Amino acid sequence: MTANTILDTKNRAQVATSETMKALVYRGPGNKALEDHPKPLIAAPADAIVKITKTTICGTDLHILKGDVPTCKPGRILGHEGVGIVDKIGPAVTAFKPGDRVLISCITACGKCDYCRRGMYSHCTTGGWILGNEIDGTQAEYVRIPHADSSLYPIPKGADEEALVMLSDILPTGFECGVLNGKVAPGATVAIVGSGPIGLAALLTALLYSPAEIIMIDLDDHRLEVARKFGATQTINSTDGRAADTVMAMTGRRGVDTAIEAVGIPATFELCGEIIAPGGTIANIGVHGTKVDLHLERLWSQNIAITTRLVDTATTPMLLKTVQSRKIDPARLITHRFKLDRILDAYETFATAATTKALKVIIEA
Amino acid sequence: MTANTILDTKNRAQVATSETMKALVYRGPGNKALEDHPKPLIAAPADAIVKITKTTICGTDLHILKGDVPTCKPGRILGHEGVGIVDKIGPAVTAFKPGDRVLISCITACGKCDYCRRGMYSHCTTGGWILGNEIDGTQAEYVRIPHADSSLYPIPKGADEEALVMLSDILPTGFECGVLNGKVAPGATVAIVGSGPIGLAALLTALLYSPAEIIMIDLDDHRLEVARKFGATQTINSTDGRAADTVMAMTGRRGVDTAIEAVGIPATFELCGEIIAPGGTIANIGVHGTKVDLHLERLWSQNIAITTRLVDTATTPMLLKTVQSRKIDPARLITHRFKLDRILDAYETFATAATTKALKVIIEA
Amino acid sequence: MTANTILDTKNRAQVATSETMKALVYRGPGNKALEDHPKPLIAAPADAIVKITKTTICGTDLHILKGDVPTCKPGRILGHEGVGIVDKIGPAVTAFKPGDRVLISCITACGKCDYCRRGMYSHCTTGGWILGNEIDGTQAEYVRIPHADSSLYPIPKGADEEALVMLSDILPTGFECGVLNGKVAPGATVAIVGSGPIGLAALLTALLYSPAEIIMIDLDDHRLEVARKFGATQTINSTDGRAADTVMAMTGRRGVDTAIEAVGIPATFELCGEIIAPGGTIANIGVHGTKVDLHLERLWSQNIAITTRLVDTATTPMLLKTVQSRKIDPARLITHRFKLDRILDAYETFATAATTKALKVIIEA
Amino acid sequence: MTANTILDTKNRAQVATSETMKALVYRGPGNKALEDHPKPLIAAPADAIVKITKTTICGTDLHILKGDVPTCKPGRILGHEGVGIVDKIGPAVTAFKPGDRVLISCITACGKCDYCRRGMYSHCTTGGWILGNEIDGTQAEYVRIPHADSSLYPIPKGADEEALVMLSDILPTGFECGVLNGKVAPGATVAIVGSGPIGLAALLTALLYSPAEIIMIDLDDHRLEVARKFGATQTINSTDGRAADTVMAMTGRRGVDTAIEAVGIPATFELCGEIIAPGGTIANIGVHGTKVDLHLERLWSQNIAITTRLVDTATTPMLLKTVQSRKIDPARLITHRFKLDRILDAYETFATAATTKALKVIIEA
Repeated sequence: MTANTILDTKNRAQVATSETMKALVYRGPGNKALEDHPKPLIAAPADAIVKITKTTICGTDLHILKGDVPTCKPGRILGHEGVGIVDKIGPAVTAFKPGDRVLISCITACGKCDYCRRGMYSHCTTGGWILGNEIDGTQAEYVRIPHADSSLYPIPKGADEEALVMLSDILPTGFECGVLNGKVAPGATVAIVGSGPIGLAALLTALLYSPAEIIMIDLDDHRLEVARKFGATQTINSTDGRAADTVMAMTGRRGVDTAIEAVGIPATFELCGEIIAPGGTIANIGVHGTKVDLHLERLWSQNIAITTRLVDTATTPMLLKTVQSRKIDPARLITHRFKLDRILDAYETFATAATTKALKVIIEA
Repeated sequence: MTANTILDTKNRAQVATSETMKALVYRGPGNKALEDHPKPLIAAPADAIVKITKTTICGTDLHILKGDVPTCKPGRILGHEGVGIVDKIGPAVTAFKPGDRVLISCITACGKCDYCRRGMYSHCTTGGWILGNEIDGTQAEYVRIPHADSSLYPIPKGADEEALVMLSDILPTGFECGVLNGKVAPGATVAIVGSGPIGLAALLTALLYSPAEIIMIDLDDHRLEVARKFGATQTINSTDGRAADTVMAMTGRRGVDTAIEAVGIPATFELCGEIIAPGGTIANIGVHGTKVDLHLERLWSQNIAITTRLVDTATTPMLLKTVQSRKIDPARLITHRFKLDRILDAYETFATAATTKALKVIIEA
Repeated sequence: MTANTILDTKNRAQVATSETMKALVYRGPGNKALEDHPKPLIAAPADAIVKITKTTICGTDLHILKGDVPTCKPGRILGHEGVGIVDKIGPAVTAFKPGDRVLISCITACGKCDYCRRGMYSHCTTGGWILGNEIDGTQAEYVRIPHADSSLYPIPKGADEEALVMLSDILPTGFECGVLNGKVAPGATVAIVGSGPIGLAALLTALLYSPAEIIMIDLDDHRLEVARKFGATQTINSTDGRAADTVMAMTGRRGVDTAIEAVGIPATFELCGEIIAPGGTIANIGVHGTKVDLHLERLWSQNIAITTRLVDTATTPMLLKTVQSRKIDPARLITHRFKLDRILDAYETFATAATTKALKVIIEA
Repeated sequence: MTANTILDTKNRAQVATSETMKALVYRGPGNKALEDHPKPLIAAPADAIVKITKTTICGTDLHILKGDVPTCKPGRILGHEGVGIVDKIGPAVTAFKPGDRVLISCITACGKCDYCRRGMYSHCTTGGWILGNEIDGTQAEYVRIPHADSSLYPIPKGADEEALVMLSDILPTGFECGVLNGKVAPGATVAIVGSGPIGLAALLTALLYSPAEIIMIDLDDHRLEVARKFGATQTINSTDGRAADTVMAMTGRRGVDTAIEAVGIPATFELCGEIIAPGGTIANIGVHGTKVDLHLERLWSQNIAITTRLVDTATTPMLLKTVQSRKIDPARLITHRFKLDRILDAYETFATAATTKALKVIIEA
């Protein structure tokens, strides 16, 4: 083992035994299969192998399946979320031992590069979002986790493990990209554009800061109803194209302090620009596939900030504490449950959320 | 005098005596004249009348003359910068008395509204940028300053008053919109797109934070030469359209921590997006007349911030101290001097800067 | 009226008519009386006269009565909290008119001096805490409020005015000096030393940031019971002198992220130093009468911060919004109610809180 | 090798070969010797062995020699600063390889524990200040560095390695504990109490933020003269006990925005409390051996912060950039040079600085 071999975490050939496991494998645009696949092995000193107990499906997995994520090649096991039990560790792993129950972060972080030192784990030079993308992921019986000490979190005794699956990605994404970047504060007025799972995760975590108003905007009345149950103070169905006017009327023509974009298309980003108050912040969560119009001819003088962020999961320990102290209940995002051998049904349910009313689905391995 | 009369600072009819003074008056798109004009009078308890000793011309004045600023109507005296001597004060003015030498802020601030309490004077509900726009300005022998206590600053004894004219607008604009919003820090790498007066003001004030590199980008070699003299560590003439590549090569393909947009057109804003490092900040200073493309399809995951700001001049006291302690010499921005009766020549010189090499011109009243 | 006359707000002779009103007057250490007193008049352009509808008594009033506050001279009307109705305004008042219902801040702020521009109203050069101290206060039928535009807040329609009396002083004090200075954050562990009215105000406002644990420490079991009802997760009766040990045991020997000192004696301050975790903050609210020991021989290497603050009431607008949106209910601090003519009974009740279980008492004028 | 063996970095028995090297060994209070000592070996996967090229002596080494640091036992090789060349690496080291020129941080950081994730490396649960204290240090020909990837920094080509020895401890200490914690800002007024090496390091790094005034206070006129050469705007010899009065006179009775304590005794800490302006920060750098008086009876209302910090060396990469870009020249702190075999003379010179005028001494191994 030399220093250099560890450096190319991403490109490392997957070392595997003849033992097999079930795994959901990406087979090129439009295709996926539940297959027998070799079990992963320790490939670098900082690796751990984790036996998955619960995982889930992310909107990003659907993007991959459409062929929209070129870094993810056919043959890849999907999934970047989950909880499990440490099965094996490499010789450089010091924080975990076999048998430990762990939460898997969707972001792999070495903890040592310049980005990691700044807490910007998403841009780790040998990690970032690689799980279920550039290396095999969590929708399987076992997964190899590089840089395990910085990429896994111990699960407190007595914790609701199903709820903690929400801490792999969706809850820190809503919190970091939406709430923290958006500077949500006590007494503030917040609008969240998009009431899907990620918008609802932003809503749940925004409540940690006690804003005065949270206005939720979506095209789907059911999702808006869920938002009201979760704590939104106002909801707007934007089907009529008049959402901006409605928000301005609700805020005395002032606009909102924070606008969180949780969809990822030009129209919803532009809406944020129309409703933001002077001095406010537009926090983008959405994964965009195309450029957007930014109306600087109006916004140049409005003292606003626009932020983007790939989740760093730097706040996972903080979120674990808020869940443990019952300040937040992420299990409210879970609507359906499946066994791993029925993961194709889980995908179907999740992909047709308008009909199934699915938010997050739990898959038990 | 009732409370309500003071509230509409902006719309107040200018009360005037039969005494006259010289003033540069906007006469509709393309037209201006040096005219005799009634001297202003105290119109509200918090007003002061200031006798102008030195003023200057801003790029924004040229915008007004093109007809691009609809809030500025024909008949308006232009100018929002200058130093002078307090001539008269209203009964609610407590911080100044006649004879005091004062610096005039381009931003009028009541100090009491929600925006002013947050230091966002640019959005003062009865002030903001009104001078030489919605009310008569400083390119005259006298000017009425509403909310005088919060909109004027005492000039320290022995100060270089010519240099302080730069503190009315251009220096705080470069500093607040560019340097502070851009989070310029010791050791950082900064790019400033645009080496005109405002870009150079950003450069001078960026040096207060000791960044490791300041890369200055412009089409004009003379201005780049000035930038090097002012302290830029690298300069790029972007005429060949390869500025982004050059910056990336200079920074080991990493990009810059701070990109300051100091032009105000789509191409320069897009350039900032191409050179910003993950985790960096694009600080917009430019006054934009049209929307720009924001490439969120690439930037959504780059953990960046984009900021806009109309200068608040909240840092004027701090900048006064840095000038007094010789940490910065804003007089370096001054290239030409004129008497008020030759202000039309001053405009000509300033408007043809490519030929005259003008940066800021001083007009003595 | 000249500029200078307004500058010495504090020393201005109280101008008064022959009309009289009831007022609680400090008559030297140990003495107070409910007396007939001349009604106040407008004395400076920025003054307002407010007809008090409700006021309260502060622990500081008891300090004054002991003779501990040398700036407060015999003959002074006490009180620096309350709500009321604007009766008269000076010519420079623009934000209020007679008949407006207003909240009176305990801090008088000019909005224009260097400290006010930084939001540090407590150190306003012509204001600060002067009400019921250096000028006549609110325990009367009428009060004169200098710098009215920056020192009064409009009461929203339909608001619970009794609850808003808590926003004059105690709630912003707990919030600014304790919670904000203490950097209370989601998931954090907080200890509040002192469960009297001010410690409870810190508790109520700490909840706005969803900390994981709030440990309340006091000698009085009743007050600890109140704390539990208000949301404390743990309480410690420190009578046995083992509070530090107990906190360290509760936190796995790590200590707390935030320790809020809400008593004002050396023992409670030292306790904070014993329980603070590395990287934590000790936020002092207590009014101290003597020096304290700071154990730098241990704390020099602990990366902690210790903060002090006289409340600025800079967050009053934010707190008003949190009250209006029902994120916080300050009326829970109110235990007793009296008419102004029974204010001596109110003082008696408040001063003997151990027996009466009084927290805050409301006095209706 | 199991996970647990790595956890006790501090207590690990030093594994050594029969090869020997020269080393400066602590032999109990008052005693030290230059001895032949076994060369260190890799003892954990994340270790590196570094061949020292240059090291130095710290004031803390003198404290150890007095017997003031109980964690440092007789037999320990002293020294926690230096530069060198990587000689060997453990299998988990990925950022360095033999032959790399490196800067050694005085703080050992795992990069993975809760404190490291917050950038608080000084409190790393398996590191912190252990070098030359709990494990053998750098005043030797070779040193073992645990957690090498997070505790070493690559030396840029062409760098002045002698100057970089100042980045092991003294420069980040002055910067982090004094300048950053003290919130030194452009235009601010700063006082530094103590003009020894650490106070001068604070001075050099304070200049990165362009404060308007830096007042240096010491008992030694020579050191004050050095301070003036380094950029202090004012100096005060405090021998007459009137330093507080002098500072207040210099600042118009307002006090300073930042007071940096760089001595470590009660008198200098109290002086900071006497000269701090409302809203200011007292940043403690000094290593205190006894408690101090904190005058909360005056300071409770002054809106100040007092900070303590054991250096984290989290800013080492930033400081490297400022040195490389010539914004700061730490070599100015170096007054004497010795070979390793004359290290006892180096100690003598450093310990008698009043006579020798020594600041930092370089020892070449």
